[in-house]
Amino acid sequence: MTSPFNPAVRHLAAPPIPEVQGWARAYDGRHGPLLDFSQAVPGYPPHPDLLAWLGEASANPAYAGYGDIEGENVLREAYALQASGLYGAPVAASEIQITSGCNQAFFATMLALAAPGDDVILIRPFYFNHQMTLDMLGIVVNAVDAKAGDGFVPSPDAIAAAIRARTRAVVLVSPNNPTGAVYPHAVLQAIFEKCRERGIWLIVDETYRDFLADGTGAPHQLFANARWQDSFMGLYSFSKSFCIPGHRLGAITAGGAGVEQIVKIMDNLQICAPRPVQHAIARAIPALAAWRNANCAEMGRRADAFRAALANSRWQIEALGAYFGYVRHPFAGESAVAVAEQLAREAGVVTVPGSYFGDGQEPFLRLAFANADAATIALLASRLP
Amino acid sequence: MTSPFNPAVRHLAAPPIPEVQGWARAYDGRHGPLLDFSQAVPGYPPHPDLLAWLGEASANPAYAGYGDIEGENVLREAYALQASGLYGAPVAASEIQITSGCNQAFFATMLALAAPGDDVILIRPFYFNHQMTLDMLGIVVNAVDAKAGDGFVPSPDAIAAAIRARTRAVVLVSPNNPTGAVYPHAVLQAIFEKCRERGIWLIVDETYRDFLADGTGAPHQLFANARWQDSFMGLYSFSKSFCIPGHRLGAITAGGAGVEQIVKIMDNLQICAPRPVQHAIARAIPALAAWRNANCAEMGRRADAFRAALANSRWQIEALGAYFGYVRHPFAGESAVAVAEQLAREAGVVTVPGSYFGDGQEPFLRLAFANADAATIALLASRLP
Repeated sequence: MTSPFNPAVRHLAAPPIPEVQGWARAYDGRHGPLLDFSQAVPGYPPHPDLLAWLGEASANPAYAGYGDIEGENVLREAYALQASGLYGAPVAASEIQITSGCNQAFFATMLALAAPGDDVILIRPFYFNHQMTLDMLGIVVNAVDAKAGDGFVPSPDAIAAAIRARTRAVVLVSPNNPTGAVYPHAVLQAIFEKCRERGIWLIVDETYRDFLADGTGAPHQLFANARWQDSFMGLYSFSKSFCIPGHRLGAITAGGAGVEQIVKIMDNLQICAPRPVQHAIARAIPALAAWRNANCAEMGRRADAFRAALANSRWQIEALGAYFGYVRHPFAGESAVAVAEQLAREAGVVTVPGSYFGDGQEPFLRLAFANADAATIALLASRLP
Repeated sequence: MTSPFNPAVRHLAAPPIPEVQGWARAYDGRHGPLLDFSQAVPGYPPHPDLLAWLGEASANPAYAGYGDIEGENVLREAYALQASGLYGAPVAASEIQITSGCNQAFFATMLALAAPGDDVILIRPFYFNHQMTLDMLGIVVNAVDAKAGDGFVPSPDAIAAAIRARTRAVVLVSPNNPTGAVYPHAVLQAIFEKCRERGIWLIVDETYRDFLADGTGAPHQLFANARWQDSFMGLYSFSKSFCIPGHRLGAITAGGAGVEQIVKIMDNLQICAPRPVQHAIARAIPALAAWRNANCAEMGRRADAFRAALANSRWQIEALGAYFGYVRHPFAGESAVAVAEQLAREAGVVTVPGSYFGDGQEPFLRLAFANADAATIALLASRLP
């Protein structure tokens, strides 16, 4: 007799990214190199100094033993200092919980805030891993639609109207995955206030924060609210801006009470995030600021190249942000999966179908344009049918 | 208004190890150096070659990007080969899921097998993180007592009698944490058969497997059962035997169907385990076999020293295994916490109170004797009141 699995897990689809990349294996190269715009991977290597520091820290026996569950103090301090400057509001090292990547930050946060049967508001189209995490934890996905006509920026009133008795949190991703939309300060503040009024949490995933155009200032002013710790948590990933997703490193910014709860989860989830990478990134945060700014400018050039490549095509950019473009394909009525699969197999362009991000997304594909340099992005013009 | 947390998390105690280590800060050194027998940490450094390989792999830009969710093939193959030899039964690389430590292996496995309201059998005294993981996932802890009179080896009949309609799995830890008990092959096989008959999973956590005395052969013969994949999974940690808990690396051995479910969880929990350490350990598994065997012999000497140190004391070793000793303290009627706290503060000996491992454990303390060398362990004789 075969023993059964948890139905909440068994019912989930297989991980989407490997599936999408599987389609690309059928591409025969006839139009030139494969253009992989599926998983967000900047395409340039980490800074050589960071690689050296990673090597040093990993070879150091001092970091081979267990570390503090909350994270290495040196990284919590470096990140708190950076955040305080970026947001123009004081964030303390004690308000930082280091995680092994931002997916883990989200998983731990959801477990800390919601029990099975509670619900959490996601803005649709949503990052599929957010939906799957909630599904496997038995937390109900309460989807609120962001509309193409609004540039995929959600309406604070629509969010407030969706809050129910068992709603525990609103999750936003800005800059957004999948659409790329960057939420204005006023919208974020309005949603924060509605959450606070109703006694629920606002969680903002800022994985793509560091790719916002230079000079745009603070991504939001939520940390300037008095007692933000009672109703707000920010999630962050070091993977994208330092190009080290293989090392897995993220952070949660939460009040002391939040960290106190999340620490219990982290202790069971993996005791502590890997230590050597924490020491290397603590050095890199101040030391590689100029390099990150240069990458940010590069992302701006890639966005321009993406707009130019699609300008005279039948493909319409509905939203475009720090990393992703959300594009309406020209095959109205066809499923997003059919369009994306054919694009991968025939044209060697790998994208993620809109339908992976929730119901109602068949007209769209997500392109992680920032994966490739401007010259490569320009090749899209001749590849898109 | 302060937004609320998930009650299943809020109700959990703070992580135990930092609390225990906090007591030790009050020790003034009057009897000599602090003897920390709390968290299992072998006390010798990783092999220098491993440190060099860790440094190399971490500095390699090839491993900075995302990896396969299941783990790096090179490590899955190396570990499958090692397991096949150790257990004398074929284990395939496709049957290995790499995790970021064994706590994560347990967390992912429980989520894969049990839904909220289901129950899982733990053998009491149990590893507290197992209990807390189940609690936070809303899975009921179904505790079956292992008795001091039986050397803390559980009874297959008692386990069978505890299986209820919603029981999904039996979890064993062998060599045991906290007692050190090493479960005989026949007991493991009998429990496996009862699980199979009843259509539930048997999960064996073998974190301390590599510290079993050399020459004792396979830790069990469960992989020799036909279709073991339908009802058995093994959990393992690379942290202990390679002395790299700060790098976080573990593994689940499961059938293809099990890996297929667990991959969905891992994708959300952290996408993939950190990559560089996987490449370093893939080299270390075959290359450092002699070093591991030497450590194993050293553990035997430490066990002997531990027995000798307590031989003429009022402290009685109730069980002793590869890494831990489970000891009856001489203060009958006093709480284990009071005894452990006083021992840490006054005598500079850090242990974990039995009560942390479940009800009915007040007479006991857990000592991770294998943390210290034989000379240091000998100091215990004059420290124990």
